Amino acid sequence: MKTIVIGANGTIGALVVERLKGAGHEVIPVGSSSGAHRVNMEDPASVDALFRAVGRFDALAVAAGHVTFKPFAELREADWAYSLGSKLMGQVRLATAAIPFLHDGGSITLISGVTAREPIKGGVAAAAVSRAIEGFAMAAAPELPRGIRINVISPTVLDESMEAYASFFPGHESVPGARVANSYLKAIAGGFTGQALVP
Amino acid sequence: MKTIVIGANGTIGALVVERLKGAGHEVIPVGSSSGAHRVNMEDPASVDALFRAVGRFDALAVAAGHVTFKPFAELREADWAYSLGSKLMGQVRLATAAIPFLHDGGSITLISGVTAREPIKGGVAAAAVSRAIEGFAMAAAPELPRGIRINVISPTVLDESMEAYASFFPGHESVPGARVANSYLKAIAGGFTGQALVP
Repeated sequence: MKTIVIGANGTIGALVVERLKGAGHEVIPVGSSSGAHRVNMEDPASVDALFRAVGRFDALAVAAGHVTFKPFAELREADWAYSLGSKLMGQVRLATAAIPFLHDGGSITLISGVTAREPIKGGVAAAAVSRAIEGFAMAAAPELPRGIRINVISPTVLDESMEAYASFFPGHESVPGARVANSYLKAIAGGFTGQALVP
Repeated sequence: MKTIVIGANGTIGALVVERLKGAGHEVIPVGSSSGAHRVNMEDPASVDALFRAVGRFDALAVAAGHVTFKPFAELREADWAYSLGSKLMGQVRLATAAIPFLHDGGSITLISGVTAREPIKGGVAAAAVSRAIEGFAMAAAPELPRGIRINVISPTVLDESMEAYASFFPGHESVPGARVANSYLKAIAGGFTGQALVP
């Protein structure tokens, strides 16, 4: 199984690459600024060029996209444009552009986050974006052709990241990154579609 | 209580105006193209001008915003930009710009829709937008100053609209528009905040 991992150099992406390789996938790691394959998910032309370069494949796994974290009172139009353009539309256009290149029965796995479910300090744009991604997958699932599935991984903060982000997550239980990576494998290999999986 | 109703000439908005007047509100009806007060919610300057013209008030109720309905395979970047720019960002900027003009303990009530919960034919952008609005309210609620509350009304198709939209809602139970209007009053007059109310 040939799987493209977007955000392969990130904390989650690197664990996903490792987990999928362990499960026998031929992994195509894609970063934004290093590696043999690169993509700027905010640029439709860059997204199209990536898939043309890679050719047909079986699964797309995304662990990338940015949102602005700041107090609601300081959120400006530009912060919304950045957040919607990167984590939401970046993933929407990756998913949309992937379809013609996916083999029958292939899958798309996107990322949202705990901000979809719980109010995190400064996470207003993140909440909107994470919910939007989950709604996108729910509604797109029944419209996908050729048995292609789409799901979303919705992780809380990772054990590996808790020290850096502790002030955003008081009282939250972090999860091992390996559990998040496992959820990607479960979404790809299982029968889920239209679901948001919480690792 | 002085309440601004955005989308006052629409099916839902007109019922909201009527219901709030019946409950004793001083209603300021706002349309996009007719009436004493008008707003283009896609234009930040127009939104700012509206609130400066009206001055201080107690409640903002929004029943406006557009999204593109079309098969996922036909959804283009421009459709997403239109949908995110109108129903999502239109409401985000109305809510954001309203805050300095709202009296202490005031409220903001936005609109999402059944597309947030159920996959409707052609409703991929609507699903993403509706979920985003509900996530926005959930996360913004605890960051609002001076006891201001924010909620979302998430109606399914109205009895009054079912004939026109029946093909999108096979097997769905429509609801009376009066029940949707009641939900706006409940959100404004009650203690809810950060909630999505399903009429």
